Amino acid sequence: MSESYYGLLDEEKVFKDPVHRYIHVRDELIWALIGTKEFQRLRRVRQLGTTFLTFHGAEHTRFNHSLGVYEITRRIIEVFQGRPYWNEEERLLTLCAALLHDIGHGPFSHSFEKVFDTDHEEWTRRMIVGDTEIHNVLLKMGDDFPQKVADVIEKTYPNKLVTSIISSQIDADRMDYLQRDAYYTGVSYGHFDMERILRVMRPMEDQVVIKQSGMHAVEDYIMSRYQMYWQVYFHPVTRSAEVILSKVFKRVKDLYEQGYKFKQEPKHFYSLFEGNMSLDDYLRLDESITMYYFQIWQEEEDRILSDLCVRFINRQLFKYIEFNPNLQMNDWPRLQQLFAQAEIDPEYYLVVDSSSDLPYDFYRPGEEEERLPIHLIMPNGKLRELSRESDVVEAISGKKRTDHKLYFPMDCLTDQSDHKEIKQEILSLLFK
Amino acid sequence: MSESYYGLLDEEKVFKDPVHRYIHVRDELIWALIGTKEFQRLRRVRQLGTTFLTFHGAEHTRFNHSLGVYEITRRIIEVFQGRPYWNEEERLLTLCAALLHDIGHGPFSHSFEKVFDTDHEEWTRRMIVGDTEIHNVLLKMGDDFPQKVADVIEKTYPNKLVTSIISSQIDADRMDYLQRDAYYTGVSYGHFDMERILRVMRPMEDQVVIKQSGMHAVEDYIMSRYQMYWQVYFHPVTRSAEVILSKVFKRVKDLYEQGYKFKQEPKHFYSLFEGNMSLDDYLRLDESITMYYFQIWQEEEDRILSDLCVRFINRQLFKYIEFNPNLQMNDWPRLQQLFAQAEIDPEYYLVVDSSSDLPYDFYRPGEEEERLPIHLIMPNGKLRELSRESDVVEAISGKKRTDHKLYFPMDCLTDQSDHKEIKQEILSLLFK
Amino acid sequence: MSESYYGLLDEEKVFKDPVHRYIHVRDELIWALIGTKEFQRLRRVRQLGTTFLTFHGAEHTRFNHSLGVYEITRRIIEVFQGRPYWNEEERLLTLCAALLHDIGHGPFSHSFEKVFDTDHEEWTRRMIVGDTEIHNVLLKMGDDFPQKVADVIEKTYPNKLVTSIISSQIDADRMDYLQRDAYYTGVSYGHFDMERILRVMRPMEDQVVIKQSGMHAVEDYIMSRYQMYWQVYFHPVTRSAEVILSKVFKRVKDLYEQGYKFKQEPKHFYSLFEGNMSLDDYLRLDESITMYYFQIWQEEEDRILSDLCVRFINRQLFKYIEFNPNLQMNDWPRLQQLFAQAEIDPEYYLVVDSSSDLPYDFYRPGEEEERLPIHLIMPNGKLRELSRESDVVEAISGKKRTDHKLYFPMDCLTDQSDHKEIKQEILSLLFK
Amino acid sequence: MSESYYGLLDEEKVFKDPVHRYIHVRDELIWALIGTKEFQRLRRVRQLGTTFLTFHGAEHTRFNHSLGVYEITRRIIEVFQGRPYWNEEERLLTLCAALLHDIGHGPFSHSFEKVFDTDHEEWTRRMIVGDTEIHNVLLKMGDDFPQKVADVIEKTYPNKLVTSIISSQIDADRMDYLQRDAYYTGVSYGHFDMERILRVMRPMEDQVVIKQSGMHAVEDYIMSRYQMYWQVYFHPVTRSAEVILSKVFKRVKDLYEQGYKFKQEPKHFYSLFEGNMSLDDYLRLDESITMYYFQIWQEEEDRILSDLCVRFINRQLFKYIEFNPNLQMNDWPRLQQLFAQAEIDPEYYLVVDSSSDLPYDFYRPGEEEERLPIHLIMPNGKLRELSRESDVVEAISGKKRTDHKLYFPMDCLTDQSDHKEIKQEILSLLFK
Repeated sequence: MSESYYGLLDEEKVFKDPVHRYIHVRDELIWALIGTKEFQRLRRVRQLGTTFLTFHGAEHTRFNHSLGVYEITRRIIEVFQGRPYWNEEERLLTLCAALLHDIGHGPFSHSFEKVFDTDHEEWTRRMIVGDTEIHNVLLKMGDDFPQKVADVIEKTYPNKLVTSIISSQIDADRMDYLQRDAYYTGVSYGHFDMERILRVMRPMEDQVVIKQSGMHAVEDYIMSRYQMYWQVYFHPVTRSAEVILSKVFKRVKDLYEQGYKFKQEPKHFYSLFEGNMSLDDYLRLDESITMYYFQIWQEEEDRILSDLCVRFINRQLFKYIEFNPNLQMNDWPRLQQLFAQAEIDPEYYLVVDSSSDLPYDFYRPGEEEERLPIHLIMPNGKLRELSRESDVVEAISGKKRTDHKLYFPMDCLTDQSDHKEIKQEILSLLFK
Repeated sequence: MSESYYGLLDEEKVFKDPVHRYIHVRDELIWALIGTKEFQRLRRVRQLGTTFLTFHGAEHTRFNHSLGVYEITRRIIEVFQGRPYWNEEERLLTLCAALLHDIGHGPFSHSFEKVFDTDHEEWTRRMIVGDTEIHNVLLKMGDDFPQKVADVIEKTYPNKLVTSIISSQIDADRMDYLQRDAYYTGVSYGHFDMERILRVMRPMEDQVVIKQSGMHAVEDYIMSRYQMYWQVYFHPVTRSAEVILSKVFKRVKDLYEQGYKFKQEPKHFYSLFEGNMSLDDYLRLDESITMYYFQIWQEEEDRILSDLCVRFINRQLFKYIEFNPNLQMNDWPRLQQLFAQAEIDPEYYLVVDSSSDLPYDFYRPGEEEERLPIHLIMPNGKLRELSRESDVVEAISGKKRTDHKLYFPMDCLTDQSDHKEIKQEILSLLFK
Repeated sequence: MSESYYGLLDEEKVFKDPVHRYIHVRDELIWALIGTKEFQRLRRVRQLGTTFLTFHGAEHTRFNHSLGVYEITRRIIEVFQGRPYWNEEERLLTLCAALLHDIGHGPFSHSFEKVFDTDHEEWTRRMIVGDTEIHNVLLKMGDDFPQKVADVIEKTYPNKLVTSIISSQIDADRMDYLQRDAYYTGVSYGHFDMERILRVMRPMEDQVVIKQSGMHAVEDYIMSRYQMYWQVYFHPVTRSAEVILSKVFKRVKDLYEQGYKFKQEPKHFYSLFEGNMSLDDYLRLDESITMYYFQIWQEEEDRILSDLCVRFINRQLFKYIEFNPNLQMNDWPRLQQLFAQAEIDPEYYLVVDSSSDLPYDFYRPGEEEERLPIHLIMPNGKLRELSRESDVVEAISGKKRTDHKLYFPMDCLTDQSDHKEIKQEILSLLFK
Repeated sequence: MSESYYGLLDEEKVFKDPVHRYIHVRDELIWALIGTKEFQRLRRVRQLGTTFLTFHGAEHTRFNHSLGVYEITRRIIEVFQGRPYWNEEERLLTLCAALLHDIGHGPFSHSFEKVFDTDHEEWTRRMIVGDTEIHNVLLKMGDDFPQKVADVIEKTYPNKLVTSIISSQIDADRMDYLQRDAYYTGVSYGHFDMERILRVMRPMEDQVVIKQSGMHAVEDYIMSRYQMYWQVYFHPVTRSAEVILSKVFKRVKDLYEQGYKFKQEPKHFYSLFEGNMSLDDYLRLDESITMYYFQIWQEEEDRILSDLCVRFINRQLFKYIEFNPNLQMNDWPRLQQLFAQAEIDPEYYLVVDSSSDLPYDFYRPGEEEERLPIHLIMPNGKLRELSRESDVVEAISGKKRTDHKLYFPMDCLTDQSDHKEIKQEILSLLFK
């Protein structure tokens, strides 16, 4: 690989970062990538979607996180330098993949992708190999360099060691977001001794492994991850906002398909609705644009669209109750019927949301999504899968936990100025 | 004052806050205010304007800060309870003023106010006494309650003790923003021992005073403030973004006044341009809306508007050099002339920006903006102005420091594909 | 209970504390207890014994910790005030028990008690009910007050709620030491959200329970506890120092019993050796005194005593290997024989040390040391044992983990200036 | 300089350190020095003398601090590597000097040196060039190596750049102790951005200089230093303990000189009293030994010695009042006379203590203790003395602040069971 086009910066650039203190950039290539408009766009996509409505500090963006993943990767490579299995020629490739791994995320990705059936990984690939500023920067490293970066991110790159730095059960991505999300939300979970973990990471043939002496730091990381999932990522209030957001997207798409005449036309969404979205269209669609539409749609005539937007903008969220799938399913048809009778469209206002997490898993061949386990390297040089050494990890490994909740607008139900009896029946079914 | 309409919440509400750990709400009145759409709008106005372009962590909003000022005020009042001079009947009034003191801030206030000649303090008043959800919530406390809240914020309320909690040289507002801005930017300044300061605050006839034993904590606070001003608030890169922002606002206003035909009409700004902005219009104008326009204006035909918007959105900022007013003014007409000849409109692309700070000041009658000094209460019960006791504060008190910088688009000047000789003359004048 | 003798201090006293920021004392009774010579003596007993030889920061004392337990108890009681089951008349009793719960600890308690067959709990009782300054301070609260304080500490006090604040699986004692020991050692474990736990603690009939909404904070606490045990408390290097310390104590006792003539007589230990130690003798025996003897014993003629003391003072510790009880026991007699032949007395220089921890346990009737489980109080008011709600806790609950290590002076074995062949055989047995 | 004897360790050793997270040792030479008995002795000398009686967390030792200074020096050298003026051959020399700079400190140095007229710098030299384990370790680096290390510490080494790393107004020593003492006391001062300062340090011909862009971090460091002096180091309660300690030392020396017959002979002090203390005697005299004597002297017959020891051990300190030298001197003879009449020996019980600090100073030729100023290196490569660039530093530079306090045993004066009238006159003179 020729690294001749880009050299080192005359003077190292630093970003002040609350999580890693400083983010250091010495490579012209990295500096050029950060300056592209596609990378700057990540400033307009929040890292945690609707979580800011639950934890008001969580306004941080994917720009922050991407720099953080780059920085952790840079530090991992510092540890790897000169060690067996690590090929210094893959340094810049690894750093680029770290920096760009989230470049394809759209506004409020989670709901966006579900409703519009898009895939941020596909858009990431297009941003790297398509006609973008990023592509042009990468191209100067060699004709095949952009594709290699995309391959690392897509995990199809032949050297699995490189892939595993960015994407595995203990990678630069996870280590950054756990700490970063903990910092900005202010929760007391999410802390672990990353400095220690970095010191005990070792390159191996096809993966990063951990020296056995660092096992407890890894245990702590896995417990942090577990706590962050249930305390932050799956917080029921965040999911309530996410439910409303999805329904806004769904409603506007349904209306468009029904030929509804918008007072304020959602031009930025047209190519999306029509299934022919270009890279340029996609790049325009950040969270500022989305929030603009949510605000103007508050004044649409369609009652459902305007109500859902008012709810999202002013944080008048749905309430939730535990949902027992077996029991409640029996009442489901009746509940839907009652909602319809009370003129509260159940398609938008009666929603089951499920979240589930698998805190740590080892390899089980044949399963859909095989997860590469974490390996410890023992004093004798042999590898052992983490859960065989750690009681704590063994205890939680492979245990999928799922949580189901039912969301609905309690305010509509307790406002009994109309459909009083129907609403009372609804409430008694919900809380029986 | 009747406090009968609102009581205490059944269960205390808490917000997780990275700076104060938890923000506690027990009063139904406060909870109702937080739920209003005007207060929720503060989620869409950043606390530090364009600072996020310098410190990527600084995406936090005025919503965060307002809750923080409320929380500090709540803790101050806890210390005051049962002490002389403190009237518990003014508790809710003080808390409301703390929570709402920034409610009138528009998008990117600093530049916005300068260009459009608006005043967030005036809008704050209108949001409290005008026809808003906030007003309706406050009204239930009594007919004159909204006005009282506005009076406290405007410092015209008769009891100066109440005012000084929210607004003085050591108040809940400053104590929150110093810590909060330090947290989100990640700088190592901005820390001081607030817990200690809260413990040594005492109510007096017309102000909050500090027990002498807490003097060093106050010194530390003043030094933090000093460092934050020069390290964060007046950071030259932030000011570069602010310069561009102002020029975008100015350009769009100029174009409107010239009858320019916008491809994408800035409807949200019309009433502002026409000088008849309503409260509703103002409420719509948050930073999402503003960012939406900046993005679509990138595609306007007007070269200046589109260029400035591209610069702001993609962070291609102006460079800066120290500006010596005396020396450089001699070259000023020549510089402007050369810029014009090089087709780089100096009205938009050659800008002097000055920042100045007065770290601490004592009362000097007759000056425009009289600043109430900080008083220590000595063991013998007498008051002494802080700078008479503290060498450090005495050393910096009353010393105004000003910094002048000259901003311009270096990229245009080094791109010598046209006007080569003119640009060379410009560069030699700038760097002579 | 009459509280008439002691009132409130004119001005609250505060201790600056790195862990809890400030420790607040308002009660004259507490202030008087802190001033006693028995309480001040705790400044001369380290909280973590020999751990300072592994983690150089761990020089903190039981004085620190005792104040910390008092402070946490004070905050718990603040939460309990006015709630059912909590009797405000037991406030001072609870605070005294919290402050004094460790008052009977001797120098390097762990080894001290093992070798000399003393019991710090018994000494605690004697310091409270015997003729001490503490006793005299407590007595002014009423004739039976000292006994009540002792009863709470010994868990024989009738109101189990009071006992459980000081001593249960989630009590003020554990919450202080986990955080404090983490702070002074500098490890990244040991952190949990105590502020949250305090907010969700509720008094019940015979125990403190936790609101279900706080379950994750408790999980985090239990995981912290688990990590601290294996990372700090059972650190093999600390145990090496502890092994040497025990052997010093044992040697000096053995020598005394053999009528050995000390160059420097261990007068402070005589009554201990003779089994008639008075309270005054015990009070004199702090860690400064003990360290004094260790230093002068370096110059004793007895080779074992002086060698062990040199090792302890200069941190020339024993090395360790994993000890497999089944396998290694077969070689045990041979190893001992070889050590003796090499003139390395195996009684002092070949030591197995075992540590085991039970991270969390629920009640199993009939077991020796029944541990009161942690109960959650559910939204419906019912209690549920923690491990039934928490997957993580369930996973580790009741799982006792034991670690066995074999300690010996590697330096003696590798110094093959004498007994070369014997030492080689020893090494081959140890590392086979 | 030959570095052949010592190489690199097979595996880097790390110490967990709360202040610097980890202390890294790769050089066998450094590892060997840490293992010497003279260095291990620093575990038995507190970093802050009697400060633990004011801030209970401040039990940390000179062992901690010495490792910290080594670690900071190591990081400074990492920044210097490959830069002009820095000679990599002086790396180990600099690290040794950093590690050993405090090796000569005795127990409670401050009072110890004042009373016994010793000098820790002289003892440091003797420990390095005398017959010690340290000397033998250093000698293997070359015959003149020990002397060079001593020269660096004594600032007589020809290369002033090396000296200034260890000892200047912004050196590794000060940077460590400010942070470390802040950490262990728990005060909120003492924080500054060391990572930033390390990044902007540059080697120059005869000193370390600071890049101008790092000026604010240096300002913050100087303000931290200022606050730590007045909040921690000169805390009046600490000085009270120091006063008592000095008087204990003085009393025991006076008694010895008077031929007093001690119940428990202070053998460890004899050679000191007789002015012929050997290196071995000095090494034995650590704080455990000293505390041992303080404890047993509590039972001496001499009333003054036993009283002062009881006070120190049980923290029954002297009270203090501000002392106005001019005013109070007029009453001084009378006060002394009255103390004598009340049988409270004024030589031990009426003490003026003065502390003064010069927060920052620039070079003023001809003054006794010339302090090397801090220099900034400007973008144009020129040096400028810090106070010419920084308003804050200019404001406090060269301003010596002195504080005088009068210490006496208030308890004796308020106990008016005897000498009632005399004591009343004393009190009225003290508080007039």
